[in-house]
Amino acid sequence: MVLQGDSIGQRSETVRRANLSALARDVHSRGTRSRSELGARSGLTRTGIGALVAELSARGLVSEERASPQGTPGRPSVLVQPNSDAAVVLALEIAVDSLAVAVVGFGGRVHYLHRVDRPRDRFSVDETVADLVELARGVRGRPPVRDALIGIGVAVAGITRRADGFVHFAPNLGWRDVPLGARLAEAFGSRVPIAVSNDADLGVLAEHRRGAAVGTDDVLFISGEVGVGGGVIVDGRPLAGAAGYGGEVGHLPVNPAGLACHCGSIGCWETEVGERALLARAGRRPEGGRGEVEAVLRDAAAGVPEAVAALDSIGRWLGFGLAGLINVLNPQLVVLGGLFGRIYPQVGETLRGELDRRALLSRLCMVRVVPAALGVDAPLLGAAELAFEPLLADPAAWMLTPARRPYIQSTDQTRPRWQSQI
Amino acid sequence: MVLQGDSIGQRSETVRRANLSALARDVHSRGTRSRSELGARSGLTRTGIGALVAELSARGLVSEERASPQGTPGRPSVLVQPNSDAAVVLALEIAVDSLAVAVVGFGGRVHYLHRVDRPRDRFSVDETVADLVELARGVRGRPPVRDALIGIGVAVAGITRRADGFVHFAPNLGWRDVPLGARLAEAFGSRVPIAVSNDADLGVLAEHRRGAAVGTDDVLFISGEVGVGGGVIVDGRPLAGAAGYGGEVGHLPVNPAGLACHCGSIGCWETEVGERALLARAGRRPEGGRGEVEAVLRDAAAGVPEAVAALDSIGRWLGFGLAGLINVLNPQLVVLGGLFGRIYPQVGETLRGELDRRALLSRLCMVRVVPAALGVDAPLLGAAELAFEPLLADPAAWMLTPARRPYIQSTDQTRPRWQSQI
Repeated sequence: MVLQGDSIGQRSETVRRANLSALARDVHSRGTRSRSELGARSGLTRTGIGALVAELSARGLVSEERASPQGTPGRPSVLVQPNSDAAVVLALEIAVDSLAVAVVGFGGRVHYLHRVDRPRDRFSVDETVADLVELARGVRGRPPVRDALIGIGVAVAGITRRADGFVHFAPNLGWRDVPLGARLAEAFGSRVPIAVSNDADLGVLAEHRRGAAVGTDDVLFISGEVGVGGGVIVDGRPLAGAAGYGGEVGHLPVNPAGLACHCGSIGCWETEVGERALLARAGRRPEGGRGEVEAVLRDAAAGVPEAVAALDSIGRWLGFGLAGLINVLNPQLVVLGGLFGRIYPQVGETLRGELDRRALLSRLCMVRVVPAALGVDAPLLGAAELAFEPLLADPAAWMLTPARRPYIQSTDQTRPRWQSQI
Repeated sequence: MVLQGDSIGQRSETVRRANLSALARDVHSRGTRSRSELGARSGLTRTGIGALVAELSARGLVSEERASPQGTPGRPSVLVQPNSDAAVVLALEIAVDSLAVAVVGFGGRVHYLHRVDRPRDRFSVDETVADLVELARGVRGRPPVRDALIGIGVAVAGITRRADGFVHFAPNLGWRDVPLGARLAEAFGSRVPIAVSNDADLGVLAEHRRGAAVGTDDVLFISGEVGVGGGVIVDGRPLAGAAGYGGEVGHLPVNPAGLACHCGSIGCWETEVGERALLARAGRRPEGGRGEVEAVLRDAAAGVPEAVAALDSIGRWLGFGLAGLINVLNPQLVVLGGLFGRIYPQVGETLRGELDRRALLSRLCMVRVVPAALGVDAPLLGAAELAFEPLLADPAAWMLTPARRPYIQSTDQTRPRWQSQI
């Protein structure tokens, strides 16, 4: 957007850059489009859109190609397609059960994606950082990463300050106050910006741009892993809150007579719907991890009463908390990620029954509840989107050097606040 | 803002109108400013800002006046001041205990404000509409309303669809499915738009523009009346949700073992912190109304144990629900309106204790909790702001006829979606 909080006017240069940004976002998010369609969507003249496309093309971000005539009269349209090799990002994810790396190109093409499980121990920050460097070793020296890396995005299962990638608290990793952005920047020896964010916030970003929530402006994403994360889209934009901590739904108090939560409170939603709650209610070890969860799902499918009852309880408590959030946020769409997406077929009916009892009808009649479309990779793909943000926000600030070496952000630009200094 | 969801370009005419809108908002919200200050805030040239001010001046909305020299060298600055008689709105409020009317001018000057108590009976819609017409009779035939009325804004204690002022459910008025916007338009025989919204949503709008939350971008407003209402500002804008129902915090489930709520659910926040809960816990009639509430406050001040315990309980449950909302929304500021603002001196300490136990430290350390600055009139003044919205959104669409008769919205403009047809 062009007008900032305190600004009441616009210069024409600002408008040109904003339009360039809007065009780059459009091509990145929606893929190949005809020049005339881009023109129609923008309201710009043929000349205006042509100049903007030419500028993106000069920077290597898009190519133009004449569409083959389709039997319609008139000149064939020119197709504008994103060059997925011209700018790529490295996406990393630090989950409790796994580490993952992906290489994603401009336009959203996933060049590479690799996830490795790890036993649920409390890995130190040093070990985790070293493992990530190792995991990415294979792709870093080769094209397109070698030639066109513009940024690194990181998803982490913890409460994170986007400004500098500082992880305040990641209870299920056993981390507190970790300068993760700075640590990764050092370990990767990177010249490109590293942006770190909470996994659920990135999950909703990815589902909104490329998953179940495309084209939907008011979305609530909740994801069950060991903890319970959430992300909220309000009027098409992520609910960040005062410091980027918005959407932390796991610590909504729902049960004054409930269990102690690791956050220090009692009866947080996470204590009623998280993985530990599921396992304990099914008569298994709360710390049993994913293997035990799979066993509960198998038992439930086979009709074992404890497993069925445990899932039923999760469904009811999911509905209880969701009803409140639907009343407060009035979303069009609730996307269930992680564990919640997996168990949705079994718990959907119970969940809906609870919503019917508790959510206000005016909200309920307009909200759909669906499982996540990107599955477990939503946060990783969201980390890629985060890393593209500086380029999308101001393509004019990025230069491709003649020898097709990495994009360097020109030095006269102020870096966006959320990038760590590297 | 200029760029809409699906638009990727801007025409210069769009930019000019957006700038005019931004300037009108600035003068309306912040009052008299020097032309050079407006220029500095806008980033526009002296010529650019001069042309925009001249256009607002030609429409009668602002006057320019040379400031008296203050001993500084150079030309004295030109002051741009809002003309509070040039465009006025009529604001109405339908509360459970009272009806109110106000006349507010461009720039926020309150020309007139009158509130009448009414006994807490279930007035019919007919009676309420007739009472409002009667209440406004005195101001309607006289300037400035006679000459410069541009809109009517209405605050109502119920769940309301802004698009057409349809009240779905106002439990404490005993209303369900009332086409209030259309009824008022008919009764007032008005040629100007009538906009209707929920009282708490308008309360937060007023507190954000002229009260405790000026300059704060992430705000949670909760107001205790007979029911519990709320409004949320996210990143400087009201959280509307998919249909304008966002912020309905009263029906956040907080106690699975709680009381039945009139909404059909059990243990909603309203059942624990509303007026009825306070009265019941203090050993008084839950339906006793404001007189009984005042008696509880007096008893508590005198140290009567039941009254002190009742307030203490409200404080604890306020903290319980607020902790969850602070975790989810990460606001900088919580504004307590209505009953909650009144009892804040007595319950503040208990409330803070509960927040300390339950809210995540990363959020808690950045949030302030304060009583509302505009007191009981916040929703009424918010209704005035709502009625100014079409003018502020596009001042160029409004014309003042030569004889200084009412502003008429020019017919080539599509009306904003939320205005009722009248």
